[in-house]
Amino acid sequence: MMNIGIDMMGGDYAPLEAVKGLVRFLSTQHSNVLIHCIGNEVELQPLFQEHGIDTSKIKLVHAADTIGYHEHPTKALKEKTQSSIAIGFHLLASGKIDAFISAGNTGAMLVGAMFSIKPIEGVLRPTISSIIPKLNGETGLLLDVGLNADCKPEQMNQFAILGKIYAQQILQIPQPKVALMNVGEEEGKGNILAQATYPLLKENTHIHFVGNIEGRDIFNDKADVVVCDGFTGNILLKMAESVYDLTQQRGIQDEYFNRFHYENYGGTPVLGVAKPVIIGHGISGAKAFSNMIALACKMVERDICGKIAEEIRL
Amino acid sequence: MMNIGIDMMGGDYAPLEAVKGLVRFLSTQHSNVLIHCIGNEVELQPLFQEHGIDTSKIKLVHAADTIGYHEHPTKALKEKTQSSIAIGFHLLASGKIDAFISAGNTGAMLVGAMFSIKPIEGVLRPTISSIIPKLNGETGLLLDVGLNADCKPEQMNQFAILGKIYAQQILQIPQPKVALMNVGEEEGKGNILAQATYPLLKENTHIHFVGNIEGRDIFNDKADVVVCDGFTGNILLKMAESVYDLTQQRGIQDEYFNRFHYENYGGTPVLGVAKPVIIGHGISGAKAFSNMIALACKMVERDICGKIAEEIRL
Repeated sequence: MMNIGIDMMGGDYAPLEAVKGLVRFLSTQHSNVLIHCIGNEVELQPLFQEHGIDTSKIKLVHAADTIGYHEHPTKALKEKTQSSIAIGFHLLASGKIDAFISAGNTGAMLVGAMFSIKPIEGVLRPTISSIIPKLNGETGLLLDVGLNADCKPEQMNQFAILGKIYAQQILQIPQPKVALMNVGEEEGKGNILAQATYPLLKENTHIHFVGNIEGRDIFNDKADVVVCDGFTGNILLKMAESVYDLTQQRGIQDEYFNRFHYENYGGTPVLGVAKPVIIGHGISGAKAFSNMIALACKMVERDICGKIAEEIRL
Repeated sequence: MMNIGIDMMGGDYAPLEAVKGLVRFLSTQHSNVLIHCIGNEVELQPLFQEHGIDTSKIKLVHAADTIGYHEHPTKALKEKTQSSIAIGFHLLASGKIDAFISAGNTGAMLVGAMFSIKPIEGVLRPTISSIIPKLNGETGLLLDVGLNADCKPEQMNQFAILGKIYAQQILQIPQPKVALMNVGEEEGKGNILAQATYPLLKENTHIHFVGNIEGRDIFNDKADVVVCDGFTGNILLKMAESVYDLTQQRGIQDEYFNRFHYENYGGTPVLGVAKPVIIGHGISGAKAFSNMIALACKMVERDICGKIAEEIRL
């Protein structure tokens, strides 16, 4: 039995959308999963009843408190021991749950992941990634997308390995093509960081490195895993998300551009920490919550963290 | 009388598309402009005849040679003195023309701009910019988009001034809102470079600084001039250009997304050098060539270089 913990109070539309997401997830077959719903029971119980949730299939974990969006992450996590996020990390650290999901205070989620769960031994810097909808129908991965605004070449070189494992195990790409995001195709192009990272990736025997790609290649099939620093990646990701909004505002309904909607990927796993932690978008709706639970299950099932630990040791 | 020089041999579809662009430009009223068409007269004369160009309205400057795409910029420019690009820079440096345009070897254009024309006194690093199509119908400016892969805060702070002048004079925005591209809105966010640049922009009395913007804000009305390092800017620009290609491949015809097509902005001026130099896209077609000539005229008319020199001195 897998135990997945979810913060029911995190996100702009929580707990209602979290409950709806739970309904959505439970409507599919997941006989081997127990969802630990962490949140205020006074608010949650009537919602569970209203939405016809069979409470024998879940476990309600009461959390009297929540961490707000503008609270200082470290301080809030330390002082609000009864908050849904603090309880989630306590359950995850103590092994009562196998993965933890929240769409609440991103900073608190990162602090919890780094300090209460901790990086896998040998991992220089954990990273967060994002799905890339490719024009050919496939899905790529971009990382880092914001956890590490300044990177070192050695860290970027490891992101490539973390991304490869994720692409193999979750996106089911047997031998992912790994590329470096850059301003030109030839070796030697780029800023100092990209120039110094290229030779490391070229020598990296864990990955199938295909060289540099440019901004125009993100959505084509040149690469499956695209490595960049978190500053560049975060700006790219947010710009890509805004393309979806632009199509909506222009009244365009298109199957491909609809894949740019954040709800489809749900949340961002923190890769490189010892247990699965998934951070949701603040504006997560039912579909996003449901997809995050499904992603958490996959990450536990495929033992992503174990596989990362193994490959980093090599 | 304005004298605009154009390399008729530069670009994948030259000289044919350059000639068509010339026809397009000449069909509008420009009585005070003399176009110096630099290229191989054996190839150009029959094309001029075929496309009905009144050769009294232009000046054909013979260039026996061309610089190819894969030639080494510095070496080619030095050795191929009879190439269209070398002749163009010679004419520009000696004052025979007031602006020079080419869609040929980008490296050679940059080398020519930097070494034969030279930066304006006080300009730390010249920069290249790109137009941003905003959803509200207006046009913004992103810079640097690739000339400076690694930047210093002082250089970024100057890009803001160059961008402001261009936005005022060419995009006709009286008081452009200038923003720093970053990963979050609050001061203190970002990588080391962005963190160090923010206070300089805040203190910069030449500009109306509105703070940080994120990747999702590029196409909205938060800012008119967006400053970033050339690595980030180049990747963003190429990704934005690819969005146009995506819409085309999805069969979407939309007035707004059509503005993402490079032909609409034509070429990229090198800002901060002593005379107007415009670099065209390798795949420039007639519309792009025509728009580049129009842009060159505007830059001369409004004396962009003089205004930059004046403001940098202050």
